[in-house]
Amino acid sequence: MTPADLVVLHEITQLKYRYMRGVDTQDPALLETVFAPDVRCWYDGGKHARTGRAEVIAFLKAGIGPTVYSTHIAIHPEITLTSPTTATGVWRFQDIVYFSGPHPELVMPGIQGGEELVGAGYYHDEYVKLAEGWRIKSTGYVRIFQAVKRPYKPNEIELTTEPMRGKLAKT
Amino acid sequence: MTPADLVVLHEITQLKYRYMRGVDTQDPALLETVFAPDVRCWYDGGKHARTGRAEVIAFLKAGIGPTVYSTHIAIHPEITLTSPTTATGVWRFQDIVYFSGPHPELVMPGIQGGEELVGAGYYHDEYVKLAEGWRIKSTGYVRIFQAVKRPYKPNEIELTTEPMRGKLAKT
Amino acid sequence: MTPADLVVLHEITQLKYRYMRGVDTQDPALLETVFAPDVRCWYDGGKHARTGRAEVIAFLKAGIGPTVYSTHIAIHPEITLTSPTTATGVWRFQDIVYFSGPHPELVMPGIQGGEELVGAGYYHDEYVKLAEGWRIKSTGYVRIFQAVKRPYKPNEIELTTEPMRGKLAKT
Repeated sequence: MTPADLVVLHEITQLKYRYMRGVDTQDPALLETVFAPDVRCWYDGGKHARTGRAEVIAFLKAGIGPTVYSTHIAIHPEITLTSPTTATGVWRFQDIVYFSGPHPELVMPGIQGGEELVGAGYYHDEYVKLAEGWRIKSTGYVRIFQAVKRPYKPNEIELTTEPMRGKLAKT
Repeated sequence: MTPADLVVLHEITQLKYRYMRGVDTQDPALLETVFAPDVRCWYDGGKHARTGRAEVIAFLKAGIGPTVYSTHIAIHPEITLTSPTTATGVWRFQDIVYFSGPHPELVMPGIQGGEELVGAGYYHDEYVKLAEGWRIKSTGYVRIFQAVKRPYKPNEIELTTEPMRGKLAKT
Repeated sequence: MTPADLVVLHEITQLKYRYMRGVDTQDPALLETVFAPDVRCWYDGGKHARTGRAEVIAFLKAGIGPTVYSTHIAIHPEITLTSPTTATGVWRFQDIVYFSGPHPELVMPGIQGGEELVGAGYYHDEYVKLAEGWRIKSTGYVRIFQAVKRPYKPNEIELTTEPMRGKLAKT
């Protein structure tokens, strides 16, 4: 690892932060700037898999929306430079989401408004350097847990646990 | 972006972390070391605006206090060096606050003790390099959401949402 | 601070992230790679103190377990290089833990399953560079707060506050 490598790591972390900002500020124009054309996403351990920039952005647009107020944070980057134009990255994430009204059953069923979701896991990403700069080539995550509270189900936490606790099956 | 620029970014992130530490450890002496003399703050989208180091620190001292137990985290820094002595920065933040007793109505009304606040948004900062080092020239934030739970209002979440979801109106 | 120093800081942050990943993915093999042989830990302000790699890892293994789903995040690193082979670090942490069933009374009493723990504080670490790379020489934390909710105690938050709010007594 050299100072010049740190500059590359910086570019990749900036890419990731731009992506997170695009999701939670609900800015599709920003999301247009983060993906490689042939990007592959496999959110929630692969439950939501999409290929190609247009399809991935369409999926994200469907997931965000006027009744969704979210903060997804990506921290603890462990990035490996695999060539001058490719890299991989593992990041802890945590998400907190509040729903202010009904929302399509994309993330979880039965969203009426008032629900709170708290979760955590690991992103497992691939990056590629194109002419326009570093882009996300693939991204997906494996959860540690997801905890949902619904105001109409008092004192109940719907805890979904992931036995892999964020780890990839194949590593 | 060069390795030398990364050193500058590092100095600015250290400044920000010292600020966050000053707030949550409730250390006014530390806060004295982070602001430019003419600092301007505009917390919560400008609802709380103050100018000048003494006034900003007085505001922060009033906001923290013996019944406030808080963690404010600043992550995802996107910092732009605009000259050798000036920079701007955008950061995601999240705050979790517990109140162990009554507190003045600075952040929200009706604090009796037992309340829990969870929020998120974006800081939009300006930094300046003075003889003594980098200092905060201006800082403010726009929320994505703020969610308050009160033990005497069971199964109710007071969700305050911000249509800008952290974005500055003028960018 | 030079670009070469930033490379050292990067190595130390990678060490910390590997440690956090070992804890929350419950990967003891990973934890074997982060500690100096004579490591000293003093978790929760010293309530849980252990010395030596085997003893520390045994403690961590007892703390994690099949009914524990946790996310501990370490952010805001303020790292000081004290010699070419030693360094100290202060980090804000936050932890969110859900229990899916009974768990030994290591962290808190009376875990039956369904509990939620949210906390924050500061790590105060020492690092040492050995032949195999940077390792944790000592680690401990002082909390700001810990908030526990139990489904069988509705509308009650067990708030434990720490008057030092993350600060070391002796600094």
